[in-house]
Amino acid sequence: MTKRLHGSKLSTCTQRVMLVLNELGLPYELVSIDMGKAEHKTPKFVREMHPFGKLPALEDGSLHLFESRAICKYLVAKYASPDSGMSLPELPEDIAMYEQAASVEYSYFDTSVFKLAYEKKFKEFFGRGEADSTVVETMEAEFRGVLDYYEELLSRQTYVTGDEVSLVDLYHLPWLHFLPQLSMEAEVSSRRYVAAWYQRMQQRPAWQKVAYPRLSN
Amino acid sequence: MTKRLHGSKLSTCTQRVMLVLNELGLPYELVSIDMGKAEHKTPKFVREMHPFGKLPALEDGSLHLFESRAICKYLVAKYASPDSGMSLPELPEDIAMYEQAASVEYSYFDTSVFKLAYEKKFKEFFGRGEADSTVVETMEAEFRGVLDYYEELLSRQTYVTGDEVSLVDLYHLPWLHFLPQLSMEAEVSSRRYVAAWYQRMQQRPAWQKVAYPRLSN
Repeated sequence: MTKRLHGSKLSTCTQRVMLVLNELGLPYELVSIDMGKAEHKTPKFVREMHPFGKLPALEDGSLHLFESRAICKYLVAKYASPDSGMSLPELPEDIAMYEQAASVEYSYFDTSVFKLAYEKKFKEFFGRGEADSTVVETMEAEFRGVLDYYEELLSRQTYVTGDEVSLVDLYHLPWLHFLPQLSMEAEVSSRRYVAAWYQRMQQRPAWQKVAYPRLSN
Repeated sequence: MTKRLHGSKLSTCTQRVMLVLNELGLPYELVSIDMGKAEHKTPKFVREMHPFGKLPALEDGSLHLFESRAICKYLVAKYASPDSGMSLPELPEDIAMYEQAASVEYSYFDTSVFKLAYEKKFKEFFGRGEADSTVVETMEAEFRGVLDYYEELLSRQTYVTGDEVSLVDLYHLPWLHFLPQLSMEAEVSSRRYVAAWYQRMQQRPAWQKVAYPRLSN
């Protein structure tokens, strides 16, 4: 049965799930939700797809699931072949390092770049005024601190959970790809190990299918 | 070897890990970090314990780990007996529901109550002025929306990931216990299923050891 992903190509959380579906070679139908028209906030969407009115949500047969990282973990647990290099960790020590990296991605990386995107892009889009330069400066400093952590980490290992690529590496791609829109791409390219990691990640064919069509739009 | 938990009894993230250590019957030493003196922001603590200057961090033999939920997952994976009822899910569909619930706890429950705590308590504590009443009203509405979701969920199942207690239920306890300090306890007690769930959870002996000493301080 074809998977149905309710989301938007403009939503970084939707891109995250599209990327993982591509990595696993799983065909799916993207049911396009127009965020500009607030279709994700309609009572029907909230009732049937996402109780908090966010994107994306997945239908896989009778299973309904929301929250992008939960969807990704489910897809890997259900469909990843052992040689995909995407399997979830099983040993306690591997779980420890994996979950620590996942928490850093979500608590510090995602949070700081999202706050920057809100100030520099979304605020204007939603008609909530211009960026607050004091807030932007604070957030940029926070984001640089996060990348400094990654630079040190990636000088010791190839990927964020160890020497094999994992879901947690993939989680970063949508926001990393967004950095030029925030005039922040130099923060990646000026850090040797972060730059090499990002280049490795963005060259994955699964990501090129998600990211590259946007350039020609 | 005794586990060393670097944290503070006043930190909800530290309480989360203390609770799980108690649930698993694991002895540990609490290495007390004075947040009032910003001991978690010292270069030594940042270098050796938590690169983002947060609490808590765990030392378990040669393993160093930060991020409370990552620590909890590691402890369960390493030390939970099969009959503890705390085991991590293994089937893809169980992983899906578990990770969805975990993401709701972190993305919506924790975020909204933390923002409220910041406005109503921490802002004053850190000398950053008084609570902004407009922000407080928005956050209270957001938090009520989150509890409405839990009310509906818990009318269908006993715990947030299904009919067995899990780590994700435990994750909620520190902030639920904090609600009286935000004058928000009625939001729990007025919701039948949320109230019954919270009562069940807070009666666990493992939590009473964490929470009750605070009452007599």
